[in-house]
Amino acid sequence: MNVITRPRRLESFVCGRWTAGQGEGATLLDASTGLPVALVDSSGLDFAAALDWGRRTAGPVLRAMTFHDRALMLKALGQALMAQKEEFYALSLATGATRADSWIDIEGGIGTLLSYASKGRRELPNARILTDGEVEQLSRDGSFVGQHILTPLEGVAVHINAYNFPCWGMLEKLAPTLLAGMPAIIKPASQTAYLTELMVRRIIETGILPEGALQLICGSVGDLLDHVDCQDAVTFTGSAATGARLRTHPVIVANATRFTMEADSLNAAILGPDAVSGTQEFDLFVREVAREMTVKAGQKCTAIRRVIAPRAQCDALVSALRDRLEKTPLGNPADEAVRMGPLASLSQRDEVRGRIAELSREAEVVAGNPDQPRLHSGDAQAGAFLSPVLLYCDRPGTATRVHEVEAFGPVSTVMPYDDIAEAVTLARRGRGSLVASVFTNDRDVAREMVLGMAPFHGRILIGNRGSAKSSTGHGSPLPVLVHGGPGRAGGGEELGGIRGVTHFMQRSAVQGTPDLVSAVTGRWIAGADAPRDTVHPFRKSLATLRIGDQILTGTREVTLEDIAHFATFTGDTFYAHMDEEAARANPFFEGRVAHGYLILSFAAGLFVDPAPGPVLANYGVDNLRFLTPVNPGDVLQVQLTCKEINPRANAEHGEVRWDCRVTNQKAEVVAQYDVLTMVAKEG
Amino acid sequence: MNVITRPRRLESFVCGRWTAGQGEGATLLDASTGLPVALVDSSGLDFAAALDWGRRTAGPVLRAMTFHDRALMLKALGQALMAQKEEFYALSLATGATRADSWIDIEGGIGTLLSYASKGRRELPNARILTDGEVEQLSRDGSFVGQHILTPLEGVAVHINAYNFPCWGMLEKLAPTLLAGMPAIIKPASQTAYLTELMVRRIIETGILPEGALQLICGSVGDLLDHVDCQDAVTFTGSAATGARLRTHPVIVANATRFTMEADSLNAAILGPDAVSGTQEFDLFVREVAREMTVKAGQKCTAIRRVIAPRAQCDALVSALRDRLEKTPLGNPADEAVRMGPLASLSQRDEVRGRIAELSREAEVVAGNPDQPRLHSGDAQAGAFLSPVLLYCDRPGTATRVHEVEAFGPVSTVMPYDDIAEAVTLARRGRGSLVASVFTNDRDVAREMVLGMAPFHGRILIGNRGSAKSSTGHGSPLPVLVHGGPGRAGGGEELGGIRGVTHFMQRSAVQGTPDLVSAVTGRWIAGADAPRDTVHPFRKSLATLRIGDQILTGTREVTLEDIAHFATFTGDTFYAHMDEEAARANPFFEGRVAHGYLILSFAAGLFVDPAPGPVLANYGVDNLRFLTPVNPGDVLQVQLTCKEINPRANAEHGEVRWDCRVTNQKAEVVAQYDVLTMVAKEG
Repeated sequence: MNVITRPRRLESFVCGRWTAGQGEGATLLDASTGLPVALVDSSGLDFAAALDWGRRTAGPVLRAMTFHDRALMLKALGQALMAQKEEFYALSLATGATRADSWIDIEGGIGTLLSYASKGRRELPNARILTDGEVEQLSRDGSFVGQHILTPLEGVAVHINAYNFPCWGMLEKLAPTLLAGMPAIIKPASQTAYLTELMVRRIIETGILPEGALQLICGSVGDLLDHVDCQDAVTFTGSAATGARLRTHPVIVANATRFTMEADSLNAAILGPDAVSGTQEFDLFVREVAREMTVKAGQKCTAIRRVIAPRAQCDALVSALRDRLEKTPLGNPADEAVRMGPLASLSQRDEVRGRIAELSREAEVVAGNPDQPRLHSGDAQAGAFLSPVLLYCDRPGTATRVHEVEAFGPVSTVMPYDDIAEAVTLARRGRGSLVASVFTNDRDVAREMVLGMAPFHGRILIGNRGSAKSSTGHGSPLPVLVHGGPGRAGGGEELGGIRGVTHFMQRSAVQGTPDLVSAVTGRWIAGADAPRDTVHPFRKSLATLRIGDQILTGTREVTLEDIAHFATFTGDTFYAHMDEEAARANPFFEGRVAHGYLILSFAAGLFVDPAPGPVLANYGVDNLRFLTPVNPGDVLQVQLTCKEINPRANAEHGEVRWDCRVTNQKAEVVAQYDVLTMVAKEG
Repeated sequence: MNVITRPRRLESFVCGRWTAGQGEGATLLDASTGLPVALVDSSGLDFAAALDWGRRTAGPVLRAMTFHDRALMLKALGQALMAQKEEFYALSLATGATRADSWIDIEGGIGTLLSYASKGRRELPNARILTDGEVEQLSRDGSFVGQHILTPLEGVAVHINAYNFPCWGMLEKLAPTLLAGMPAIIKPASQTAYLTELMVRRIIETGILPEGALQLICGSVGDLLDHVDCQDAVTFTGSAATGARLRTHPVIVANATRFTMEADSLNAAILGPDAVSGTQEFDLFVREVAREMTVKAGQKCTAIRRVIAPRAQCDALVSALRDRLEKTPLGNPADEAVRMGPLASLSQRDEVRGRIAELSREAEVVAGNPDQPRLHSGDAQAGAFLSPVLLYCDRPGTATRVHEVEAFGPVSTVMPYDDIAEAVTLARRGRGSLVASVFTNDRDVAREMVLGMAPFHGRILIGNRGSAKSSTGHGSPLPVLVHGGPGRAGGGEELGGIRGVTHFMQRSAVQGTPDLVSAVTGRWIAGADAPRDTVHPFRKSLATLRIGDQILTGTREVTLEDIAHFATFTGDTFYAHMDEEAARANPFFEGRVAHGYLILSFAAGLFVDPAPGPVLANYGVDNLRFLTPVNPGDVLQVQLTCKEINPRANAEHGEVRWDCRVTNQKAEVVAQYDVLTMVAKEG
C-alpha cells in the first residue's frame, strides 16, 4: 500500500486557534519506510502573542484553582487520554517505536499525569499557595516570625522537548507545571512532532484545560525567547550544544529567567564484584544492558552507554550480551515479531555510525555490524535500521572518547575494572550523568559504589535478585523521583514528586508578627490572634470553623496514683514512672514522672467534646515533643487551636490540624503536638 | 596624623601560603580621607592550582567529618572571631562604615556562622549524608523503593563577593558551604578587600579549619573560572552586568557548573492605606525608610529604592522623611557623633550622582542636595560624601527609570498610589527584587499585598506596631530565611537555613530493595533486613545498638472493659468509644472503637523494657497515623525497629528513632509512628 499521499501539514495551537505555518515546511518521514508522514513549519506565528495569551488567559484561571482542583483536572485529562491511547499507538509506529517502546512514551506519559494527580491530592493542601518549612522564630519574645511560602510563577513555562518521547516528554513537564498553577507552551522536536500534535489535539478537544493553559508550536520557536521575562520558565531536553545556546540566550540571562536543562549523558552500569557469571545478578545485568541498548533503539537519554564490569567477567559478559542482542528481531515495528525498530531518521543513523567510528579508535566492536543491519523485516535502504553494536575498551582508564562520545542509538561499550574504587572512578569520568546502576547483592558494595557515584549522578539504581521482578529498570525516570543530573547531563532537575511542582513556583520568605504572617499563609501560628468564643470548636463544621478558633480547657492534676494506675493498666512499668530513686538517677528526671502517653490521654480527656458532632475522628498526631517532665502533683491544662483546614474535594469532610499545647501549673509547656482530625463539611 | 605611609600590599592565601601578586597593584583609598590603605593585586597566582588544592586537601577531610563536626567547627570559628572583633571594627572605618554599619558586617557575619553552627546540630543528623524526603514505594509488593539523598559536591565553591560587606559577604556564604562539607575560595571585591584579608588571616591563624578549606584571592580571579567543573560551584554578588558575564562563561556553561547570583534590585517599601499620618505604622515606616537610606550610606543590595505610599500621605511622608534625613549627621565615621559615613569611593559617588541625574528626568529632588553634602565632619573634597537624596515621582505608572535605575547610595524615590492593586503593580515593576516591605496593621491589606508581590520577591517584610521592637527590619537578610530574588535580583537563593547547605550538595534518587537502599542511607526502611536477637534492643547502648535491631512483642487483647475503663480514667468519653449505635453512624467506624491513645499506651506496655538501662527517655513521637480502627476483641502486637541513630557530640547520649508498627490479629497495621528516645552512649 505504498501509495504516496500528500503529507499532512501540522498545525500549531496558539492564542486559542489551530494555525498552520506560512512557509513550505520540512517533510517528516516514517522511520521504517521513509514515506512522508507530515510537514512541519511555524513561520508566521506571533510568538510574543502566544506568551501573552498564556499569561493573560490561563494564568489567572489556573491560579484561582486550588492544588486539588488542578490535580483533579490532571486526573480527568489522564483518564481521557488513556481512553484514546490506541490512536496514539497507531501513529507512534511512524517514529520507529515498537509497541513496548510506545508504551513508555504513551502510557508512561499518561501515567505521569495520573501520578501527579494522586500526589497533588495526597501531599498538597487544598489551597492556592504552599508553606515551605517550619515557622522560624525571629525574636525572643515571639512577636516576629518568618515563614517561607511558595506561589505560582505568573508567566508561561516554555518546554522545548526532544524527539525521542513525543508524548512522555510533553506530559512529564506539563503535569507539574499545571499542578503548580502555570500555563505551558510545548515545542516538540520537529522529527516526531506529529504525535505530539495529535495528543495536543485530543487534549484540547476534551475541554478539560482552561483556555490558554496549553499551547503548541510545531516547528521553530522563532523569536519566542526574545519575549520571556522573570516570571516565565524555559526547560530544554536535548543536545548539550543547543542547551548551551539557550542557556546563554541574552533575554534569558538578562531576566534571570528560570532555565532547566536535561541533556544526554554517558550513563554507566556497573556489575558488582560479587555478581560473577552464574549469579542471578549477572543474568539480571545482561538482561538490563541488552534491554537498555534495544528499547527505543537506544535513543534514550538514560540508556546505558558504558558497561563497567570486573575484568575477569568481561568475556562471559560480552558473550552473553552478544547472544542476547543477536536474538533481538530488528525491523519495522508494524511487524509484531519485531522487538527493536529503526532509529528516528536516516540522518540520525548516519550520526550514530559516525560516533561508532569515533569510539572505535579506543574500543573494538565485539557484537553487531554498524554498516549492515541484520533485518527481520523492513527495507534496509529506506528505513533507519541499525543493529545493536557492542564495543569493548580494554584500557578505559587512559581512554577519553568512551567517556565523552555519545552514540545516541543501540550502542554501548564494555570496559573492565580491577577494584571498586576504579569502577567508581570510571563511572565518574562521564562528568555528570542522569543515571547509573550497580548490580550487586552485597550491602557494602552497594554502599561504597552508590556513595562514590552520588555527587555525579541524579539517579542511581541498585539491581539485585530481591527486586528482579519489581524493578522499573535503569532507564526509566519515575514521576516520584528526580530526573536530571549534574554536569554533562545539564545540571537540571525535573519530576521528583512535589519537588517538580516547586520548580514552577517562587519561594518567598515572609516576616512579621505571627498574626499578620498567619493572615498571609492561612495557617495559624503560635502568637496569632485566637478568638475564643463560647462554642467548643469541636462543635463547628467546616462551614463555620475558622483558623485560630481556640479552646482553653479546664485543668487536671496528675497524682502518683494516676501514674501507678496507668503503669499497671497499660503494662508500661518503665522505672522512671515507678521508682523514685532510679528516676532520680536518670539524667533527664528529678524523680518519678508521668508517662508521656498518660499526658496525651489526659489531654484528650480535657479537650474532647464527647457528643456526636462534626469532628469524626482523630486520625493521627504529628511532631509530638515532651518538653518538660510531669511529676506527681503537677496540674495539666490544654490549649487547642485550629491551625489548618483542608477540605477534601469529592468528600463530605476535610482534614483539620489543631495546635495542641499542654501546660503545667507554672505555665511551662510540657507537651506540644499537632492533633489531626477528620471534620464534616456541614452539620 | 596625615602622614603618608606606604600602603600595605594585600596577599592572597592559596595552596596553603600567603602570596603577594607580582604586579604593581591598584591602590585602595580610605573612603573618608582619601589616604591610601592598601595595594591589591593577584597577578602571577596559579588559579588552577588553587582549585586543585581545595579539591585535594580539604575536600576529603571535610567530607569525612559529620554535619555536627562541621557545625562545631563553625561554632569555634565564630567564637574565635567574636573575641577579636575590635580589630575588624577598627579597620572597617576605612571603608566608610560607622560602628552601626560595621556591626551588620562584622557581628552580623559572625552571627551567621553561629546560626549555622546551631542549625547544623539541631536540624541535621550527626552523619555525612542527608536523606531528603520520604521513602517512595515503587512497587506494590514493597520490594523496590526509592530514597533521595544529598551528598556534598566534591569540588570547590568559588564565592565572588561585593564590596559593601567584606566580612558578612564572605561569612554568609562560607557557613553553609563548610557545613555542607565543601571547601571555598573567596574573592572579595577589591575596594574593601583589606578587611576580608584581615579576617581571613585571623581565621587561618586559629587553625580551626582544615588545610585548604578556605582560600582567598585579593585581586582579579584571573583564569580561575576556566578551570571549574561540574563539582564546583560559583556564586556571585554584585552588578547585573558582571553577573551576566559570569553566568555565560563558556566553561561554567559547558560543565553546567552551579552558578548562583544575587544582584541589586529596586526594592520597594509600601505604606499601607490604613497607615495614615498619625498611626504607629506611619512613624515606623518613616523610621525604616530613613534608616535604609542612611545605613551603609544606602550601599546595600536590599536597601529601599522605591517608597510607595497612598497619594494623600505623600506630602506628610516627604516632610517627615526630610526632617529625619536632615538630622542624620554625615561625616567621617571615626567621629562618634556621625550616623552616616561616605560612599566607598569617589568614583562610586560620581556614579550615584549620575544615577540621580537620570532619575531626575522623571522625579524631582525633594530632600538633599546631590552636589553639596551637608557635612558634620570630614573633608568634602577627599571623602566620598553624599547627603541622602529623596526624590518624588508623581506619575510612577508611566515612568520607567524610577523602576529601573538604581542609585547605589542614600537615594530613594517616593511614588504615590491610589489603590492596593496599583501599589502591588508598582512594586512588581522592579521586575524581580530581593525584598519588599509593607507597613500595615490590617490583615487583609497584608494578605493582598504580600500575595500580590510574592512571585516577584525573595523576601517580604510586614511591619506594624506588633513587631516595632522586635523586627529585624527591611534590609537585613537573616541566616534562617532565603536571601535572593527572581529576575533583576539575579534569580538566586542563598541562606534560608538548611536550604543554603543543600545548595552545595547533589541530590540523587537511589532505587533498590529496602535492604540495599538502607545500606546506603544508614537508615532502616520497612522491608530491610531486621535481625532479631534475644537481647531486647532497649538493653543496648549506642555502642552496640545497630540499625535494624528489632523486637516483635507479645500480644494483648483490647476488651470492651479496657475501652470503658480508659474513657473513665482519662475523661475522654468521645461517643465513638462509648456508644455502639452512635459509633456505627460515624462514617469511619463500624462500632465502638478503642481510643487512639489507648492503642499507643498499650503498645508502650508491650515494647517497653522496665528496668534501668541505656534507654533514658521517650522524648517524642513523629508521624503517628491510626490506620485501622481497633474494636473490642482485637489483639494488638508491636514491631519496633531501630531506624536511625544520631549520637550527640559533647554528650553522653544520642537520639534513637524507632519505627513502631502496631498490628491486629489480622496482621493489619492499626497504628504506625516513629518513637523518639534518648539512649546512652555506653553501659
